[in-house]
This record gives sequence, C-alpha cells and structure tokens, in this order.
Amino acid sequence: MLVIGDEILSGRTQDTNTSYIARYLGTFGVDLAEARVVPDVHEEIIAALNALRARYDYVITTGGIGPTHDDITADAVAGAFGVELYEHPEIMQMLRARWGEPNAARRRMARVPVGGELVKNPVQGPPGFTIGNVFTLAGVPVIMRGMLEDVGPRLKGGKVTIARTVRVEGSGEGQIAEPLEALAKAHPDLSLGSYPFFGPEGYGSNLVIRGRDAGEVAATVDELIAALDAAGVAKAFEVAGT
Amino acid sequence: MLVIGDEILSGRTQDTNTSYIARYLGTFGVDLAEARVVPDVHEEIIAALNALRARYDYVITTGGIGPTHDDITADAVAGAFGVELYEHPEIMQMLRARWGEPNAARRRMARVPVGGELVKNPVQGPPGFTIGNVFTLAGVPVIMRGMLEDVGPRLKGGKVTIARTVRVEGSGEGQIAEPLEALAKAHPDLSLGSYPFFGPEGYGSNLVIRGRDAGEVAATVDELIAALDAAGVAKAFEVAGT
Repeated sequence: MLVIGDEILSGRTQDTNTSYIARYLGTFGVDLAEARVVPDVHEEIIAALNALRARYDYVITTGGIGPTHDDITADAVAGAFGVELYEHPEIMQMLRARWGEPNAARRRMARVPVGGELVKNPVQGPPGFTIGNVFTLAGVPVIMRGMLEDVGPRLKGGKVTIARTVRVEGSGEGQIAEPLEALAKAHPDLSLGSYPFFGPEGYGSNLVIRGRDAGEVAATVDELIAALDAAGVAKAFEVAGT
Repeated sequence: MLVIGDEILSGRTQDTNTSYIARYLGTFGVDLAEARVVPDVHEEIIAALNALRARYDYVITTGGIGPTHDDITADAVAGAFGVELYEHPEIMQMLRARWGEPNAARRRMARVPVGGELVKNPVQGPPGFTIGNVFTLAGVPVIMRGMLEDVGPRLKGGKVTIARTVRVEGSGEGQIAEPLEALAKAHPDLSLGSYPFFGPEGYGSNLVIRGRDAGEVAATVDELIAALDAAGVAKAFEVAGT
C-alpha cells in the first residue's frame, strides 16, 4: 500500500485507509505486506511505487487524484510505468454530464495512464484507475471505500487468514512470554502476537493467533489457555474480534 | 519513521503514532519526510531501517521492544548497525528493583545495541534506546509519547513550519483549483494543499498553506481569500488549526 499525501506526513490528517484496506484485503485472502507514506513529490511517488510494484503482487495507492495542482498521482503512476496520460472518454462524458464543458482543473481528473482501466466510484466524482498490478484510489476515506468494492473482486487471493484473540487480564507480558513462545515454536505456520494494554481499567495483553488453518488456530487457542493456566496466568479467555 | 508490527498491517490496530510524531516533530522544526510500516520480520526491519537511516537525518521506530518472542526490534536494529546486543546495567537494575531476578523474557527488555544510549520512559516499563541517528521507541501510544519527550530535545531542527487553513464551503475543488495553482506558482517556497470534504453538513475544501516564513504565509492567506472571491468563491474564510 502506498499512501500519497503531505497531509498525512504533516500529521494534519490521520490516515485510516491503511487499516481499512488491510482488513478488507484480509477477507479476500490477501495480506497487506508493507505500507509506505510519501509526500506529494513526483520522484518520491515514482520511486516508492516502482519498488513496491516490483516486489508485491498488488499495490494500492490512495490520494492525489483530485483536480488541484497538488494532485499528481496520475502523472506519477504514468511516469512509473513509462507511459503517457490521456483523457479517458468515459470520464470526460461524466464530467460533461455534470459540468457542461469542464474547466482545465476538472479535466485533470479525466487523465488515465495509457493501458489503464477504470475503477468504479459509486460515491462521488470521477473513477480511479488500475494499470499493471497497481490500483489508484481516492484519498477521502468514504470515496476510497466505495472504490475498493471494485478492487476486491479483481484480486487473486489465497486462503483467508483466521485470527482469534485470547485476552489476559492482570498479568504482564513478562509472565506470558515463555508459554507463548513455546507455542509459537510448536506452530511455525501460525503467527502469535502479544499486544499489551494498561490503563485505569487494569492491565494485561491481547494474544492474537493468526493462521490459514482454522482447525490449527482453534486448537492453539485451547492449548494457549491451558499453558497460561499452568504458568499461573489464570485470567485468560477468548474474546471476539481479530 | 518506521512502524514495526504485524498488528498494524493486519488492520487489527489503528496506527496513531505516525500522526502524533509528525505533529510533535513539527514543533521542533523537523519535518516527517516518509513513513513505512513493516511486519515483525527480522530482514524486513533491517532493510527498511538501513534504507531510511541512510537517507534521512533521523529515524524513529515504534513497536517491538517488549519481552515476548515477537518483539524483535532490538535484534533488528543491532543487525542493521552490525553490532551486538548487551544487557544494559541500568535496565537490569530497574528490572531487579521491580521483579527481583527477572526471568528470561523480561531480561530481553534490557538488551541494547552496543554503542546505544537509553531513551527515558517516564510512563511504564523499561526505556527505549538510540544508536546513530535512530531512536527506538515503544509501540503502545501512551508509552511512545512519554519516550518522545526525551527525543525532541536531542534533535537539531530547522525553522518551524507554520500552517494556516482557509476553509471553503459550498464550492468544489474544480472551482478552487485555478486560483490556488496560480498562488502556488507565485509562492514556490510555500506548500499549498487542498483537502476536500463532503457529507451531510455540506461540501467544500480545506486549503492549507504551509511555509517557514510566517509573514509570507499570512500574506498568502489574504491573497488566497481575495483570489477565491474574484473567482466567485465567496464563502472562504480562515479557520483555526493546521
């Protein structure tokens, strides 16, 4: 995933697209492997996009496809692929239906790299596009989420990852670590993570077991609770949610 | 900034550290130039850290410094710098004061790369550390924020960036784009961004003017409102916040 935008790097805007996309992809059996945030700088976007698209099956970009001068994502994607931009007739038709003859700024939104296809926008404004293994979506979350619905079905996913959570209350990670590590070693195909919490409501850790084999994940939940109990961590129980 | 953690990439945890750190660094005149999120995989952390520390003045990492088997950040930072880890006597002393003789898991938290220095943790648990131009902090936001207070004063920042926002209501970006771009061209040292919003409360865009010269930023706010007015965008006014 490539998040494009000065507003994320300045801290002005809290990115929520990454976590949404991560969860969405998960339901298609596609794992988010890396995320990068880069500024609105042509060469930076190209360099990051070329690194990511060479390495991963898919890349999703968010941000920078509006009509203003700082919306340079289409230029950068075209630059990364070494192709030109052209005004897509379908988008021009949409813009004309909405605005009459669109001004120069609005026409910018019709530009798609040669060889690209459109990604439907069911929310508001012009579509996104896809070229090669790259999907270019809007940055505004409600629009991005709408576009994503046209991305998921195009992805070739693997088996969906199952995640189950065992919550430990009143014991710190220092007490949990040993049984957790033993279980992680016994189940090399699973990923076991520990995410501590503490605050006015108490302290503890959420232990997340992730894997593609639902049976192994379920068995490991039981093994983990038993192992914690044997280690003197009595208050460990499964909770809903991933 | 390097965010380390499977829980961010799975979408289980919403990262808020990046935007917090971006805003915090801004007050020291340090700009966040890039952010990456990588999984809990030794080689991935090393590769990303080496790329970032070679390119930027500073790198801040978050996550992976607890006592469990998936906390591998210290190992990866040491690997990136090509040095060993050792048990830092000050941390061992803290752990002993808290736990008596600490178990193997807790001792993991005392490990610091040779040549590193500690970063104070005023909240809970052991400190972070710094080596070279890298600062390694906890991932739990409340702890990370506490540690950050010991990082800021060590940074050599530039002039602080000023940001001011003009809010446009009832006009879309297509109408704003032309006067905005003219102003951006007239002020190459400033960054002008347009961040559209729409929803039940109406639509419009927040236009953010950023720069290090407060006088130029202030003058540009006035110029922008005048230029928008001339372009028929009457409802444009400065709002608080960056």
